[in-house]
Amino acid sequence: MKEAMKKLEIIVKGNQLQAIQELLDRTEVSGYTIIPNISGKGHHGLHQGQLMFNELDTLDMVITVVPEDKVETILAGISPLFEHHSGVVFVSDVTVVRPEYFKSKDA
Amino acid sequence: MKEAMKKLEIIVKGNQLQAIQELLDRTEVSGYTIIPNISGKGHHGLHQGQLMFNELDTLDMVITVVPEDKVETILAGISPLFEHHSGVVFVSDVTVVRPEYFKSKDA
Amino acid sequence: MKEAMKKLEIIVKGNQLQAIQELLDRTEVSGYTIIPNISGKGHHGLHQGQLMFNELDTLDMVITVVPEDKVETILAGISPLFEHHSGVVFVSDVTVVRPEYFKSKDA
Repeated sequence: MKEAMKKLEIIVKGNQLQAIQELLDRTEVSGYTIIPNISGKGHHGLHQGQLMFNELDTLDMVITVVPEDKVETILAGISPLFEHHSGVVFVSDVTVVRPEYFKSKDA
Repeated sequence: MKEAMKKLEIIVKGNQLQAIQELLDRTEVSGYTIIPNISGKGHHGLHQGQLMFNELDTLDMVITVVPEDKVETILAGISPLFEHHSGVVFVSDVTVVRPEYFKSKDA
Repeated sequence: MKEAMKKLEIIVKGNQLQAIQELLDRTEVSGYTIIPNISGKGHHGLHQGQLMFNELDTLDMVITVVPEDKVETILAGISPLFEHHSGVVFVSDVTVVRPEYFKSKDA
């Protein structure tokens, strides 16, 4: 099975990781991957100059791939987190190949 | 040199990493990158409810970037692995910039 | 705020990481993320068969997301590095969602 999906890469401070996982569990995503202990630096100065991440904070990246109609649900769920905590989400197009893809070709 | 290519992100359990590397070597990809010791959770419930990864398994992500005509070859090579082991592949569009890109501009 | 941007994934040997960070700071990117201690293997044999990375070198990946008009500036800044050091840059399309996105929806 090949599916056109959206990949979300959610970068947050470590203390927000569990909240993101709980959100994804509630949203019933089919899975996610965590790249732990990455470093991040940056501030989002385009509008209000607010600090996004301090100098080389320890962050986690959570990668999940979902159908397009779940993207807004997840972003809405992240909203209250992002009111009080730093973070950024990258959204991109991706095709997913799962074990079933091969099975259906063999069938 | 700028090339339109396909990026494959192959996520497997650690004990399948070597098989993936051997496959990529055989396919003569120009290189690959491994992000080790990531965590993954998820099951693929869309069709058969089968378990994809157990709760927070330790996984590896192998990233390789190939011309479009190699994608099917690699997926076919992964097929026998995925009959017996969990895994997922994300495929996306990417442009690659290599050292030659700069050299040709200087030339 | 949702923005169509370019994601750059810059893979270099560890001893080039600081030079990449300084370049991104000079280019005034709004932030970047570092995935440390990844492994890479590969040579770029398409044109000159030159070695890109030795067998499973330890590398770092630096991810930054920038407006399209900054891509060439960053690539030009990487150019002198890549004359003497191995590396590769993947460029892809991405949409960025930042905290302001949610604030403007609430407003």
